[in-house]
Amino acid sequence: MTKSISLSELANKLGATLDLRGKPDIQIQGIAPLDHAQSMQLSFFTNDKYLTQLKNTHAAAVMVKAEHASESLVPTLAMANPYLGFAKVAAFFDQTPVAKAGTAKTAIIDPSAHIPESVSIGHHVVIGAGVTLGERVVIGHGCIIDAGVVIGDDTVLKPSVTLYHHISIGQRCTLHSGVVIGSDGFGNAQDQGKWIKIPQLGSVIIEDDVEIGANTTVDRGALGNTHIKQGVKLDNLIQVGHNVVIGEHTAIAAGVGIAGSVTIGKYCMIGGACGIAGHLHIVDKVYLAGMTGVSKSIDKPGFYGSAIPAREGKEWARGLAYFNRMGKYVERIQLLEQHVKQLEKGI
Amino acid sequence: MTKSISLSELANKLGATLDLRGKPDIQIQGIAPLDHAQSMQLSFFTNDKYLTQLKNTHAAAVMVKAEHASESLVPTLAMANPYLGFAKVAAFFDQTPVAKAGTAKTAIIDPSAHIPESVSIGHHVVIGAGVTLGERVVIGHGCIIDAGVVIGDDTVLKPSVTLYHHISIGQRCTLHSGVVIGSDGFGNAQDQGKWIKIPQLGSVIIEDDVEIGANTTVDRGALGNTHIKQGVKLDNLIQVGHNVVIGEHTAIAAGVGIAGSVTIGKYCMIGGACGIAGHLHIVDKVYLAGMTGVSKSIDKPGFYGSAIPAREGKEWARGLAYFNRMGKYVERIQLLEQHVKQLEKGI
Amino acid sequence: MTKSISLSELANKLGATLDLRGKPDIQIQGIAPLDHAQSMQLSFFTNDKYLTQLKNTHAAAVMVKAEHASESLVPTLAMANPYLGFAKVAAFFDQTPVAKAGTAKTAIIDPSAHIPESVSIGHHVVIGAGVTLGERVVIGHGCIIDAGVVIGDDTVLKPSVTLYHHISIGQRCTLHSGVVIGSDGFGNAQDQGKWIKIPQLGSVIIEDDVEIGANTTVDRGALGNTHIKQGVKLDNLIQVGHNVVIGEHTAIAAGVGIAGSVTIGKYCMIGGACGIAGHLHIVDKVYLAGMTGVSKSIDKPGFYGSAIPAREGKEWARGLAYFNRMGKYVERIQLLEQHVKQLEKGI
Repeated sequence: MTKSISLSELANKLGATLDLRGKPDIQIQGIAPLDHAQSMQLSFFTNDKYLTQLKNTHAAAVMVKAEHASESLVPTLAMANPYLGFAKVAAFFDQTPVAKAGTAKTAIIDPSAHIPESVSIGHHVVIGAGVTLGERVVIGHGCIIDAGVVIGDDTVLKPSVTLYHHISIGQRCTLHSGVVIGSDGFGNAQDQGKWIKIPQLGSVIIEDDVEIGANTTVDRGALGNTHIKQGVKLDNLIQVGHNVVIGEHTAIAAGVGIAGSVTIGKYCMIGGACGIAGHLHIVDKVYLAGMTGVSKSIDKPGFYGSAIPAREGKEWARGLAYFNRMGKYVERIQLLEQHVKQLEKGI
Repeated sequence: MTKSISLSELANKLGATLDLRGKPDIQIQGIAPLDHAQSMQLSFFTNDKYLTQLKNTHAAAVMVKAEHASESLVPTLAMANPYLGFAKVAAFFDQTPVAKAGTAKTAIIDPSAHIPESVSIGHHVVIGAGVTLGERVVIGHGCIIDAGVVIGDDTVLKPSVTLYHHISIGQRCTLHSGVVIGSDGFGNAQDQGKWIKIPQLGSVIIEDDVEIGANTTVDRGALGNTHIKQGVKLDNLIQVGHNVVIGEHTAIAAGVGIAGSVTIGKYCMIGGACGIAGHLHIVDKVYLAGMTGVSKSIDKPGFYGSAIPAREGKEWARGLAYFNRMGKYVERIQLLEQHVKQLEKGI
Repeated sequence: MTKSISLSELANKLGATLDLRGKPDIQIQGIAPLDHAQSMQLSFFTNDKYLTQLKNTHAAAVMVKAEHASESLVPTLAMANPYLGFAKVAAFFDQTPVAKAGTAKTAIIDPSAHIPESVSIGHHVVIGAGVTLGERVVIGHGCIIDAGVVIGDDTVLKPSVTLYHHISIGQRCTLHSGVVIGSDGFGNAQDQGKWIKIPQLGSVIIEDDVEIGANTTVDRGALGNTHIKQGVKLDNLIQVGHNVVIGEHTAIAAGVGIAGSVTIGKYCMIGGACGIAGHLHIVDKVYLAGMTGVSKSIDKPGFYGSAIPAREGKEWARGLAYFNRMGKYVERIQLLEQHVKQLEKGI
C-alpha cells in the first residue's frame, strides 16, 4: 500500500519552509531523484552539479537550501540541510518488512538466555547460554549467537549474522548479513619456523547506534577488547583487526582493512579500500581518500591520500618507466650541476 | 563413475576437425592440462607460452587453433577457439552433484510463495512471503530469501546465500555461498556531527546469465535500483555499492570495490582489487589492470592502469624517497635552466 | 571460574628461568599487556619500544629474554622467545567455550557420512553424502558440508562455514565463520562477446594445522586442485583463486587477493591487502609489505613492497602533478644536457 502525506504536514515534520507556489494539500507519495521524480513525488537538491536537473524536475516539490529556492521552477521546501531532509522523508516512506515479536519455532534458544517478549527471533537461529537480549531486538533468520553475548534494545541483526562468544553490542545497532563479530584476531608466534596460535582472550565491544555492512569482520581482542564506539558506521567487506579502537561517529567505506591495535579517532571519514597498518594512531577528524595506504600514525586532522589515479595504459607504462629511472635522472641533474659550476668558474 | 566419449563424437559436438593421426574410436575419459594429461585424456593449447608443453604432452589429443596443429606430436582437434572448447569439454565431464527437485523437510516456506514442483530447496532454507521461483531453480541449504524476491528459471543459489526483500534475479544465474544481495547501501546524512541513516528504498535487479562469486555483496539502491545486466560475471569478495549499473557481459575479478552510483559499460574487464570512486561513468570495453584506482570517469574504451608493481625493499624505499623529493629536483632543474641561460648570454 | 597457576609451575611449563625476586608460590590468574597487568597477572616484553612500560609494570612477573631481565623491576621469567611464552600462557588461560561431543538434534546428516562418536555437530548443520569426519572434529552451528568432504582429526569449523563438495581438510585446522571453501574458480571463455562458464572440475586440498580467517574464500581448481599446505595461516577476507598453491608455514594477512594459478613458497609473510596477479611464482621466504601489488614472479627471497604511503592532501596532489609531468622534466634535463655540451664546446 502506498503511503502518502500532505506537503504541509511534511514541511511541518521537517521544520522546513514551504514556498508560496506550493499547494499545502497536495499528497506526496514518495521520494525520487530530480531527474526521475513524478508529480506526486518529492525530490531534493544537495549538489550544484545537478542544477540543470533542478531546473527541469517534474517533482511535486524539492527540498533545497533557502539560497537555492529561486533556482527551482517547482515549489520548494527550504531547510538548512536538504540531505538530512532526504534521510527523514526516506524513513517516512520506508517499506522494509518489519519483523514481528515472537520466536520462530525452529530457533534453538538456550534456557539460560534472557529474551524479552518484545524480541523477534527468526528461523534456524541459535542462541547460546547466558545470552541477554534487550527490548525489541530483532534476530534475523539463520543468525548464530554464541554464549554470553549481550545485545542492547532495538538492535537489529539481519539474517545470517554470526556472533562469537561474549561479545557486547549496544542499542539501536544494525548488523547486516554475513557479518562476523568476535572471530579470532590474527596472532601467531614463531617457534622454529612453525606458527603457534596465540589464543585470543579478549572480546569485542560495540557501542550504541553502530551500523555494520554485509560480510564485514570484526576480530576479538588478543588481550583486552576491540572497541567500536558510538555512532560508528561501517560499510561492507571491512576488516577490523584485534584490539582496534574506532572513535565516535567515524564512518568507514567498503573494503577498508584495519590491522591490529590501530586507534582511529572521532569524526573520521575513511574512503573505500584504504589500508591502515598495525599499531598506528589516527587522531580525530582525519579524512582519507579512497585506496590510501597509511603506514605511519597521523597526528593532525585533515585530508590525506596516497593513491595514484588510473591512466591510459601506455601513459601508465611510461609513468612507471620514469618512476623506475628516477635515480638516473637525479644523477644527471647532479652531473649537470657540476658542469654548470665548472662553466661558471671558467667564465 | 567415469564418463567417456569417443574422439569423433567429441569432434562432432565441438564442430572441430580431427586430424588424420587421431583414432576416431578412442574413448576420452577426461580433460587435463598439457603437462598432466594422460593417454585417455584430452588437453588444450591456448597460449604460446606453453608450446614446449604442447610438444611433450601425453594427451590422447589436443584442442588447438588450425595454425598450431602441426606443432603437436599427438592428434589434434582444430577449432577457432580452443579455450571455448575447454569450457565445453569441461561441462561434459563435470560431476558436480546435482540437486534433486523437491523441498527439504526442514525448509520454512511462506504459504504465499510460488514454488514450482521442479524446484529444489535445501535444508534450513527460509523463503518469505510472496517469493516467486522459476522452473528448476535450486536453492542450496541454509539460503535465506526475504519477502517479495523473484528468481528466474534455472537459477542456482549455492548454500548460504542471503537475499534481502524484493530483489529480482533473472534466469540461469549462479550465486555462490556467502553472497549477500540487497543489503542497505551506505547512506548517511550529517546532523550536527552524528550520522542519520538514509533508508535504502530501492532494490537490486540482476538480469539473466549472471554469476556472482563467494562472499560478494551487492547493495540495494537508495532510490531506484542497483542493476546488474545480462551475462555479467562477478568473482569473489566484490563490493557493488547502491545504484551501481554494470553493463552486459562485463567481467569483474575478485576484491573489486565499486562505490555508489557508478555506471560501468558493456564488455568491460576489471582486474582484481580495483577501486572505482562514486558517481563515475565508465564506457563500454574498458579494461582495468589489477589494483587500478579510478577517480575520474573514463570516456574512451581501452586499457587503463595505475598500480605500481612490487620492487625489492631497498629499491622501493629509494623510489619513495625520490618521489617525495620531486619538488626539490624540479627546483634544481629550474635553477640549472636559469644558470645555463645566464651562461649562454655571457658567451 | 578463574583459572590459576603458581609462578613456579608456569616457569616449569615454559622451560623458563624464574629470577630470584620471584615468589614461586604466587598464583597467576591471567595475562595482560605491561601497562594493564595487575598484581596477579603475568605480562611479556617483546618489543624495545615498550621499555618504559616494562619499567613501570605492576605485573606479578614478566616473560623476557634473559638479556632484558635486569631492566625489569618486577620478577622475570627468562626465556628464548617471550612471544611464544605469551602464546602458551594465553592457551592456558583461554576460556573459549568448548563444544561437547554429540550431534545436535536439528543437524541433518546423510546416512552415508562417517561421523565418529567423539565429533561435535552443532544445530542446523547439513552434512552430505559420503562425508568423512576425523576424531574430535567440531562442526559449528549452521555449517554446510557438501558431499564427499573429508576432514581430519581435531579440526574445528566455527559456525556458518560452507564447504563445497569433495574438499579435503587436514588435522588440527581451524576455519572461522563465513569461510567458503571450494566455490567455483573464476573461469570463463569468450564466445562472440558472451562468457561461457568453464566448469571447475578440480578440488581444494587443505593440509594439517591450517587456520583460515572469517569470510575468506578459497576457490576449487579448474583442473587439478587448489592446495594450501601444512601450517599456513590465512587471516580474514582473503581471496585464494583456483589452482593456487601456498607453501608450508606461510602467513597471509587480511584482505589479500591471490589470482588463479599463483604458487607461493614456504615461510612467506604477505602483508594485508596485497594483490598477486595470476600465474606468478613466488619463492620461499618472501616478505611483502602491506598493499603491495605483485605483477611479476619473485625469484629471490627477501622483502618487497610497492605501496605509496599516505601524505597530507595538498602534498599528495602536488606529488601526483609532478608524477604526471615526469616526461616534461626528463625533456628539460635532456635539453639542459645539450645546451651544456654546446657551452662546453664553446669554451
